[in-house]
Amino acid sequence: MTMTERVLARIDTNFEDDRDRWLAWLRIPSISAQPPHAGDCRAAAAWACGQLAELGFAASLRETAGHPVVVARHPGPEQVAGEAVPHLLYYGHYDVQPPDPLALWTSPPFEPAIVDGPHGKRVYARGAVDDKGQVSMWLNAFRAWHAETGTMPVKITVLIEGEEEIGSVNLEAFLAANAAELRADIAVISDTGMWDIDTPAITTSLRGLVYTEVTLKAARRDLHSGIFGGSALNPINALTKALGQLKDDAGLIQVPGFYDGVRDISSKQSNQWASLGFDEAAFLAGIGLSVPAGEAGRSALERLWARPTADINGIWGGYMGVGSKTVIASEASAKVSFRLVPGQDPAAVVAGFKAFMQARVPPDATLEFQVFGQGRGLEVPVDGPVARAAQQALADEYGKPAILMGCGGSIPVVESLHHLLALDSLLIGFGLNGDQVHSPNEKFEMRCFQRGTRSHARLLGKLARPE
Amino acid sequence: MTMTERVLARIDTNFEDDRDRWLAWLRIPSISAQPPHAGDCRAAAAWACGQLAELGFAASLRETAGHPVVVARHPGPEQVAGEAVPHLLYYGHYDVQPPDPLALWTSPPFEPAIVDGPHGKRVYARGAVDDKGQVSMWLNAFRAWHAETGTMPVKITVLIEGEEEIGSVNLEAFLAANAAELRADIAVISDTGMWDIDTPAITTSLRGLVYTEVTLKAARRDLHSGIFGGSALNPINALTKALGQLKDDAGLIQVPGFYDGVRDISSKQSNQWASLGFDEAAFLAGIGLSVPAGEAGRSALERLWARPTADINGIWGGYMGVGSKTVIASEASAKVSFRLVPGQDPAAVVAGFKAFMQARVPPDATLEFQVFGQGRGLEVPVDGPVARAAQQALADEYGKPAILMGCGGSIPVVESLHHLLALDSLLIGFGLNGDQVHSPNEKFEMRCFQRGTRSHARLLGKLARPE
Repeated sequence: MTMTERVLARIDTNFEDDRDRWLAWLRIPSISAQPPHAGDCRAAAAWACGQLAELGFAASLRETAGHPVVVARHPGPEQVAGEAVPHLLYYGHYDVQPPDPLALWTSPPFEPAIVDGPHGKRVYARGAVDDKGQVSMWLNAFRAWHAETGTMPVKITVLIEGEEEIGSVNLEAFLAANAAELRADIAVISDTGMWDIDTPAITTSLRGLVYTEVTLKAARRDLHSGIFGGSALNPINALTKALGQLKDDAGLIQVPGFYDGVRDISSKQSNQWASLGFDEAAFLAGIGLSVPAGEAGRSALERLWARPTADINGIWGGYMGVGSKTVIASEASAKVSFRLVPGQDPAAVVAGFKAFMQARVPPDATLEFQVFGQGRGLEVPVDGPVARAAQQALADEYGKPAILMGCGGSIPVVESLHHLLALDSLLIGFGLNGDQVHSPNEKFEMRCFQRGTRSHARLLGKLARPE
Repeated sequence: MTMTERVLARIDTNFEDDRDRWLAWLRIPSISAQPPHAGDCRAAAAWACGQLAELGFAASLRETAGHPVVVARHPGPEQVAGEAVPHLLYYGHYDVQPPDPLALWTSPPFEPAIVDGPHGKRVYARGAVDDKGQVSMWLNAFRAWHAETGTMPVKITVLIEGEEEIGSVNLEAFLAANAAELRADIAVISDTGMWDIDTPAITTSLRGLVYTEVTLKAARRDLHSGIFGGSALNPINALTKALGQLKDDAGLIQVPGFYDGVRDISSKQSNQWASLGFDEAAFLAGIGLSVPAGEAGRSALERLWARPTADINGIWGGYMGVGSKTVIASEASAKVSFRLVPGQDPAAVVAGFKAFMQARVPPDATLEFQVFGQGRGLEVPVDGPVARAAQQALADEYGKPAILMGCGGSIPVVESLHHLLALDSLLIGFGLNGDQVHSPNEKFEMRCFQRGTRSHARLLGKLARPE
């Protein structure tokens, strides 16, 4: 029995303890966006810090201008078979999205519920997968190696932040200030998904994100629509008129300069994605839709992974209660975000959106903008030794090769790690499309959780002792 | 000294008693929208019923499915100078709007405060003018005639409802069930305003109202914009795209058939309104605006009184909290209302709006509509004997003719009285634009209150004995 086999056996034996630690962490409502939950964020950070300390890591909570960062270091063995061992930087986050709307949850979001599903047991909770579930798999892999060997098979630095869901607003400053301490050979991030429950994946590209809020202000107070209707500017009419022009009928985004730098994917990429046989009809049917809504003339995976988007994530203004109120509001607001692809400049997109709005509002309206985060689209190389080891680990665990896939989401830290710490990132994750990340009833499959833990343990073993 | 002169002298002498009765009524928080105030509504109704009984009316509280209605009848004299006397139906309401937001009141809304202002004393309280102040002036005019003559100069039926502020939801059923009892020659309603504090007005037109709520539904749950953006329909994008087309760049409403039946005002009307010298710049400056927002190529008063509107009164969907959430919502909603002018068919406007929306949403979207109220725009004839008497009474009191003005708002009971009881309405009221009706710090000027009472007393005298 190899050491890796012993570690895997231990993971299987200890599965219930591993699960219960994960559930304990899920019970802490570490909602980074909501100031009343700042104490819960700190508690979730302290919980992770304590786990790592138990496993021989030098772990500490590090203050930022916002929620704290967990940093933990394990020296690993000095060398293995005469060679210096690689040094991984593992990045994750302990914060979660707000659970709203609460009424749609079938069980309370911070009281994890273990429920039978078509693939066996699953756990419903906010953060079940994103990202406490994904982090927990690494903690469990570390725990199993620690239990079997008293050490880690490689050098490991762990960085777990608490502001990923609010744009990692303080992370870049932290990375820059601690660059020497965080030096490593490669970063590993598990915040992505599988192809399907039996097919592992490595993600090779990410979309960037620009997230804005715009408020259109008109009269200095709410008005009676009978007295003022026909003379006074209605900010909701004006806001919908401007935002309604975001896309033309072919789905092309009308923000000036928006497509500057956007490249078509290579024919090789196009062919590889076509070979995956992605079933968009089934993908949409899973959420109750049937007609693709994106840009005309593009394949489904291209629209999801390699084309930019413009989505209004929220809108509000005026009377939102039951029944009627004949009011003309004094202001209206919307949250508008753009997914970006490699080549687009986030700052230019922000400037373009401001110009787009300004050109479309009446003279009396004033516009106010906030920008909550911006990050570039990225391609992630998968030809280095760690990425190759990961592909072998996944193939060993699942009995088939990992799919190389794009990701429509954004992991801004990948860009930050690259430009501040000169680190490439390996993106290997175990979420499923149906996990309802950021939605009510977020869940994680136990099967994904267990095999993900085993895959991480295998990868650690391969990095130490190439087989 | 004519009888009317004696009645007017009595009103001046008894001014403080009249005022104190009005203040006593204002202390009853008869908020019809709030179920815990149902008892206060009944108490306010009983108070009015008691007042009318004191003045020789056969008065009673009549039950409805909601708050009770006060009905009171006075036979008046059998005939005057050999002619049958006219029979007035006076309509008012004893319920008031909720006072929220309480923090903006400078004195408690149900503890009337008498304060010095630029026009003398004024009273701050919820209902000060709308409608307890306006009703109190009629009660005082009745009281003065009763004291001087022991009767009323004409036949009078009084109808005071308690659900005007919640859409008069049970009034039509009440009118229909009691049509014979409520028969009269003309209705008089005092729920409108003056041109300015020294210039009386009779309102000659009202806009109608169609008030709808539309919900656009897409996926069966909220989605992550990274995973689904580019493929899944975003209901907020779709809703803004449709609603953004409500008006063209000239402010013309794009709902199919919307302008069917809309007539331009007569050149006589146009000239009369032009002669009023309405200062739209000052009107807008009062609310912090400077550029008229309505239909191009129309005068200000035409846009406010004689042209239909389309206002979005509320909109909501997706994430409305602090910061960012990368969600594609499952649905989005808006409250959309239309002020109508005479000639427009409310049912056709509802149908047109549904068709407008349906034509502009993607195939996967489903639309749900609610309609909270619909009423026609109305012209109120002012050439009958009662309206002519009212113009004489106002001219006598103010020393100048009453302005004939339009009203951009809606008083649905006018249409109900017309189609259920075949009654025209005379709209004569003493509110000012600055009275903050429905807002914090509602107030009524004592000068308006006293001269309004005198005007009503004069009108009663003129109806009995044309001079």
